[in-house]
Amino acid sequence: MSVVAAKGFVAGGVACGIKPSGDPDLAVVATADHRPVTAAGVFTSNLACAAPVQISREHLEDGTAAAVVLSSGNANAATGEQGRLDAVRMCELAADGLGCDTADVLVCSTGLIGIPLPMAPVKSGVPKAVASLGGDAASGEAAATAILTTDTVRKEATATASLPDGTTVTVGGMAKGAAMLAPSLATMLAVVTTDAAIDPTALDRVLQRAVDGSFNGLLVDGCTSTNDTVIVLANGDAGNESITDGEALDAFTVALSAVCVSLADGMAADAEGATKFASVEVRGAPSASDARRAARAVAGSQLVQCSLYGSDPYWGRVLSELGASGVIFDPESTEISYNGVLVCHDGIATEHDASSLAASMKERDIEIVCDLHAGEGAAKIRFTDLTHAYVDENMGTS
Amino acid sequence: MSVVAAKGFVAGGVACGIKPSGDPDLAVVATADHRPVTAAGVFTSNLACAAPVQISREHLEDGTAAAVVLSSGNANAATGEQGRLDAVRMCELAADGLGCDTADVLVCSTGLIGIPLPMAPVKSGVPKAVASLGGDAASGEAAATAILTTDTVRKEATATASLPDGTTVTVGGMAKGAAMLAPSLATMLAVVTTDAAIDPTALDRVLQRAVDGSFNGLLVDGCTSTNDTVIVLANGDAGNESITDGEALDAFTVALSAVCVSLADGMAADAEGATKFASVEVRGAPSASDARRAARAVAGSQLVQCSLYGSDPYWGRVLSELGASGVIFDPESTEISYNGVLVCHDGIATEHDASSLAASMKERDIEIVCDLHAGEGAAKIRFTDLTHAYVDENMGTS
Repeated sequence: MSVVAAKGFVAGGVACGIKPSGDPDLAVVATADHRPVTAAGVFTSNLACAAPVQISREHLEDGTAAAVVLSSGNANAATGEQGRLDAVRMCELAADGLGCDTADVLVCSTGLIGIPLPMAPVKSGVPKAVASLGGDAASGEAAATAILTTDTVRKEATATASLPDGTTVTVGGMAKGAAMLAPSLATMLAVVTTDAAIDPTALDRVLQRAVDGSFNGLLVDGCTSTNDTVIVLANGDAGNESITDGEALDAFTVALSAVCVSLADGMAADAEGATKFASVEVRGAPSASDARRAARAVAGSQLVQCSLYGSDPYWGRVLSELGASGVIFDPESTEISYNGVLVCHDGIATEHDASSLAASMKERDIEIVCDLHAGEGAAKIRFTDLTHAYVDENMGTS
Repeated sequence: MSVVAAKGFVAGGVACGIKPSGDPDLAVVATADHRPVTAAGVFTSNLACAAPVQISREHLEDGTAAAVVLSSGNANAATGEQGRLDAVRMCELAADGLGCDTADVLVCSTGLIGIPLPMAPVKSGVPKAVASLGGDAASGEAAATAILTTDTVRKEATATASLPDGTTVTVGGMAKGAAMLAPSLATMLAVVTTDAAIDPTALDRVLQRAVDGSFNGLLVDGCTSTNDTVIVLANGDAGNESITDGEALDAFTVALSAVCVSLADGMAADAEGATKFASVEVRGAPSASDARRAARAVAGSQLVQCSLYGSDPYWGRVLSELGASGVIFDPESTEISYNGVLVCHDGIATEHDASSLAASMKERDIEIVCDLHAGEGAAKIRFTDLTHAYVDENMGTS
């Protein structure tokens, strides 16, 4: 049910011709009554952020939104003033169809950078998507399908939270993302809806926390895209007492985080060309931020990524990346394990059952744990291997 | 003539059995009379630096050395206390053969990380290499061959400088390096010799400058290795007045830099699996360090590297990396060109002859220039493409 799982939301997706393939490429998610509700967003930190990011930031300044219009196949990035006009026009087209203000529509695009957004398909597509809006699962799926680019599967997730006032609130979401995944965020779009009533400030804070614990812990190729966006709309249709803090906020946070983690998992599992779904956890770092820095250095290493593609537990490269990360620790107190098998103790090779490790390295899931024995800081980054197929997918734009 | 081009140096290289292939893997470079001379070194910034790096740093504390002993096939990295004992033993074996102090021998190793150095071949190999020492070109070539790992060609370079006192001094060098090339330094070893007489402090300073202008401007995969080392020995055999500053220092700097640049060029051209020899120059950055940071972000991008492999001038990825680099500039004032063809003006696509650019993108050499129009800072990084062959070479350790 995903993005329409919560009460009072509708969605739809259509093919309008932005993608030469004719695949679905335009989606709308809206409140069922098309009225603005509490909303929050997290956007790319890239200075060269795309036009839709700039426009959505503006439209979110009042903390409310009635709808999100999304296109795939063209990022509307590096398109200058015309790009901003085109992004606003997308919002206008949706607002016209829904009968709401343009400033209450948020906009997302994903795809190729540097090419003007083709407006003819957008002009016919947005009204068509608005006309297709529905609250059923099929409508949610149509929206989730229309935002995909090199993704091979739809990403949807749902969770519920029981609040202290006895109400149950629902959180649902959809996302896309397959490459250019780096903390912070990724080439990823995610729209999350909830029927919870929640204080706007609390929603902002909780969204940032959920993003940190999910999308920001993912690294595919270390590239931070121009278009990354996570949006949440909260309409209050569950009828709960507005969430501000305490137990209710905690319960809601768990549900929102669960949806974000599930969507992030879906992205990692569908990463471009990947054959391995790996994680690196760094423990015992001087601080949590040191741990994150060290884990990112390992996860972002082309050499470590290539080793995983070859199912090779080459821990020497892991130790080398930790040593080059800028974090202060004693390499000769370091432990490294692959899939629970300790391969490096006190910074040197240690005896282990190499044949059973070799067998477990053939699996899809690889867990690397590094203990620096230099403090209490810990962090985990999920990442993927670097493969021939990744190179193939990114050699050309066609 | 390379590492034996300068007066008063000898070299040799042999196969001793560290490499299972039976290829040459042990080299010695020494002063012809085996007496210590002025020496300087630049080493990896990796905290997990290899045993030979630790020992060479110690042996260089007095600013003199008589010889360098080098092995390939095993990095003697992540080998702990035993690794240090083995590195010292390599120095002892060379010192015994040469009749000099152990502390006057420097040591370098390159190859796999985390595997104890096999000492039986080293024990037979070092005396054999010492016995083979000669001042002829073939001896220099033998040494330059014995330090290669995945390199496909030997890297040697020579330059001369005419000093104000009428003497001519010679600088010669050899190097290896094919992957794990990142500022600062790379998985690279370089030994440079000169017959110039030079003040030790001046030599230190000039070497750092030459390294910054050559090896530190090279990026293959962004991985800073455990073993990077550049060593220079200066024996004064040219009979010049000792160089301290002024014109003489300038002339010597030019010669030393020329050798380092030539060796770095050789490494870039021989990078693992590369089909493109690219450079990215960032101009108009707020500062030189900002320019370097932005250029490294572009050069280190897997997506940019893949684009080059596909001969695709996908400038949108370049702009995205500039925007994600942390440098402050206005993306909508940015210009990007490929091989002299302006493809992005004011941050958006600009008309150009796409078919002639497509033809030039098929060439091996690709020059990307980015002007941020945000100051006077400039920097250039040379890098390579990310290819199927790179993935193949790094999938496994065997």
